[in-house]
Amino acid sequence: MGKDLSQFIRNEAFLNKVVSAEEAASWIEDGMNLGMSGFTLFGEPKEFPLALSKRGEQENFKVNLYTGASLGPTADQSMAEAGIINLRVPYQGNAIMRGKINNGEIYYIDQHLSHTAEEVRKGSLGKIDYAIIEAAAITEDGLVIPTGSVGNSPIFVEKAENVIIEINTTAPKAYEGLHDIYVQKAQGERKEIPIYNTGDRIGEIGIKVDPAKVKGIVLSEQPDIPSPLFEPNEETQKIADNLLAFLANEVEVGNLPESLAPLQSGVGSVANAVLNGMQKSQFKDLEVFSEVLQDGVFDLIDAGIVKFAAGTAFSLSKKRVDSLAEDLEKYKDKIMFRPQEISNNPEVIRRLGVISFNTAIEVDIYGNVNSTHVNGTKIMNGIGGSGDFARNARITIFVTSSLAKNGAISTIVPFVSHIDHTEHDVDVIVTEQGYADLRGLPPVKRAEKLIEIAHPKYKEQLRAYFEEAKEKVGGQTPHILEKAFSFHNNLKENGTMLFEDDKIKH
Amino acid sequence: MGKDLSQFIRNEAFLNKVVSAEEAASWIEDGMNLGMSGFTLFGEPKEFPLALSKRGEQENFKVNLYTGASLGPTADQSMAEAGIINLRVPYQGNAIMRGKINNGEIYYIDQHLSHTAEEVRKGSLGKIDYAIIEAAAITEDGLVIPTGSVGNSPIFVEKAENVIIEINTTAPKAYEGLHDIYVQKAQGERKEIPIYNTGDRIGEIGIKVDPAKVKGIVLSEQPDIPSPLFEPNEETQKIADNLLAFLANEVEVGNLPESLAPLQSGVGSVANAVLNGMQKSQFKDLEVFSEVLQDGVFDLIDAGIVKFAAGTAFSLSKKRVDSLAEDLEKYKDKIMFRPQEISNNPEVIRRLGVISFNTAIEVDIYGNVNSTHVNGTKIMNGIGGSGDFARNARITIFVTSSLAKNGAISTIVPFVSHIDHTEHDVDVIVTEQGYADLRGLPPVKRAEKLIEIAHPKYKEQLRAYFEEAKEKVGGQTPHILEKAFSFHNNLKENGTMLFEDDKIKH
Repeated sequence: MGKDLSQFIRNEAFLNKVVSAEEAASWIEDGMNLGMSGFTLFGEPKEFPLALSKRGEQENFKVNLYTGASLGPTADQSMAEAGIINLRVPYQGNAIMRGKINNGEIYYIDQHLSHTAEEVRKGSLGKIDYAIIEAAAITEDGLVIPTGSVGNSPIFVEKAENVIIEINTTAPKAYEGLHDIYVQKAQGERKEIPIYNTGDRIGEIGIKVDPAKVKGIVLSEQPDIPSPLFEPNEETQKIADNLLAFLANEVEVGNLPESLAPLQSGVGSVANAVLNGMQKSQFKDLEVFSEVLQDGVFDLIDAGIVKFAAGTAFSLSKKRVDSLAEDLEKYKDKIMFRPQEISNNPEVIRRLGVISFNTAIEVDIYGNVNSTHVNGTKIMNGIGGSGDFARNARITIFVTSSLAKNGAISTIVPFVSHIDHTEHDVDVIVTEQGYADLRGLPPVKRAEKLIEIAHPKYKEQLRAYFEEAKEKVGGQTPHILEKAFSFHNNLKENGTMLFEDDKIKH
Repeated sequence: MGKDLSQFIRNEAFLNKVVSAEEAASWIEDGMNLGMSGFTLFGEPKEFPLALSKRGEQENFKVNLYTGASLGPTADQSMAEAGIINLRVPYQGNAIMRGKINNGEIYYIDQHLSHTAEEVRKGSLGKIDYAIIEAAAITEDGLVIPTGSVGNSPIFVEKAENVIIEINTTAPKAYEGLHDIYVQKAQGERKEIPIYNTGDRIGEIGIKVDPAKVKGIVLSEQPDIPSPLFEPNEETQKIADNLLAFLANEVEVGNLPESLAPLQSGVGSVANAVLNGMQKSQFKDLEVFSEVLQDGVFDLIDAGIVKFAAGTAFSLSKKRVDSLAEDLEKYKDKIMFRPQEISNNPEVIRRLGVISFNTAIEVDIYGNVNSTHVNGTKIMNGIGGSGDFARNARITIFVTSSLAKNGAISTIVPFVSHIDHTEHDVDVIVTEQGYADLRGLPPVKRAEKLIEIAHPKYKEQLRAYFEEAKEKVGGQTPHILEKAFSFHNNLKENGTMLFEDDKIKH
């Protein structure tokens, strides 16, 4: 590593702390709680977890791993493979780790992403033994400059007994200045979060750390990790078109201006299709107040449609990762990353009146949403920030294809097999069949709208359930509990949720 | 009515607006949206709804009724009986109305109580044709002084096309000065809610109203409506003792000071038993930041244990109603009512770090809570403010007896028949059997704790379900969907959730 370290470690108090990843990894003991940077694969340390995983192949120990959100191959995957994780909090999205969670090898707490910092502050996740934070630099003032995410790094650094900083010497220099680090005091001692516009800068450009707590600095040359590019297909394009039609109608009837309201979008193909679609829409001067900034946000900035975007992390395709250093210079007055406790904070989301859209796994006929569990048992990723936004947004939208598994699954079902968002929090559901605007409607009227946007092949059996429930049981939210999971049970027994004709009428 | 009106209507612009309740009621047209004051029976208009109900016995019309929360015999009950309600929002608790909701005669939107003002502001509940507000007085400055609740009255008055004020000449004079009326601007235009301590006064003592919008003033001499007194019995006392033991332990391990943190408590027998129990506890200098203030709060102020209590409404027994005028003078620096959008606001609840406890109807083995629906279909009251507090509190507690219906029902079940609060939002469950502290635990460990506080007669069959689900299905949240409602189905078929011995093991 021939680089001049003093350009990355610009404060002398830190210069003599450089150690190998192996040495840093050797400090970790069985049962420790690690608070690690990283969110949607961006900003996670890489050399340290690889070294720790390698050590795990020889030695018997397990740690509890707390992060911002999902980590990638060098952290979540390698650590899961090495069998060194006891408990994972608050979000993950790695196939290997998911498998080990679902077979009971790894415990997992699926948590609202705005809650984790509060839980750490209150101590309900135990003390943080080590914070391990990827950084682009340590400034003259001793501020740790995060890379492509902020996540929970500030609270981990504040509460950790020891800190390990992994300086990534390949990180774009323009990460410095991108961040707005604001840490709240304890509950009862704090003031408001003074954000009144998406771009209000309220904190510092880096994370304050007591040099005495920094036990080691590890060096890394591993570049940022790209995510798959979610190109729209015919179906996701239809969903996006329906969502855009809903928003266009809101503008037309005067509920929203052409600049809409600050937007939050989940990660994935529909979200990217919506962002793509906005390039051709009438909307202008948009602002993004989101958790994750994807490729589409850059495209909208390029097109002059988005004027500011705030989040806590990137999730970018290879193409955008390759041009990131350049892009960051270009966009530095237009994007900002804050801690996830701030990007996802109910106080700010509600004050600004964010429009939120996230992906559902399944939705029931009354508008309850399952975002996390397949068949109520196996977790996919986690609730992430969807609950932080859904409960507090101006308009809460969930999107899903009406079918899954080549039509064997209807994503609109009588009763969802797991609930992450209750009907109290859900305003609009969008499928490729259309959108159901549930605002101002009681449950039985919500059901009418929701059955309309189910796939045609499932409409009849959904209606049969609903009519039978109304007739035989009635009530505010008619259900026949014996048949509430009949779609799921049919899937298990016959490989499809679709009933044979004679079963539809029961 | 021999009283001098000028002491109640102290601004001349309003003096010539006095009309009979019948005349005011005659202005209401079929399909109109009425925004009415009132919350837990306090502060609701009485003469107007009685006159409107009477008119409804002769004429065919229906209105949509929006309030703060539950109204009493003169409003919810008489209007339900008269058949003049089409849609009710956002909360009710009247047996007659509940029956008509559950048989489909009245539509009902069960809404987070902090959300309603926002929905009215955004227009998703349509325009407010008439606001009908009970008042103790109209001041020289033209401020409308609410009586024993604030609820949604400020937003109804702001958004209504017409306002009817029902002056209650029997209302304690000391209602004037009790209220702290702060109305938020639209989303995107507002600042923070500047409450940093429970007692911070941020608004005015009354509701600003444009005299030109006030179409009429109705006079009433009907006193405040008492609620039943919830005296503790052996079981609720045990639940309260367990909850107090949990809090005492939090103090002992250093998580909380002896002044705890601002407390929110639901309404009912357990809540009152907890408040009673606090009189004999070591806790001191307590603050209450709640939705409803019950008898117990006054008792704690008398005992010098509570130093300040803020809410949005009273719910008082006959004894306390009778002494209210006197008590209000005595306690005027110690209690305050704000609009429910403020008393229940996520921003403030989270900033202050409120400790919240509310009642559950049933809880599943992973900690999901049903607060509203019996057997998933028939509504009891509504979610009320429990979600506003549960999601944002420092510690979120739900209480329930482990049995209902003389043991035919276990309130801890494999899968709740309706979900209002997901496991993401639930920290502690308390029954008369003990408390389950779920903080920092993944689902399978939550289940272990929760089965421990089920009633002994149901423990074995809960454990059998859990073990079978883990073994046969596994996953993050093990469930056997075919048997998820087996307790409920057994209740329906055999009148009890208790299986015969041979069925327990399946």
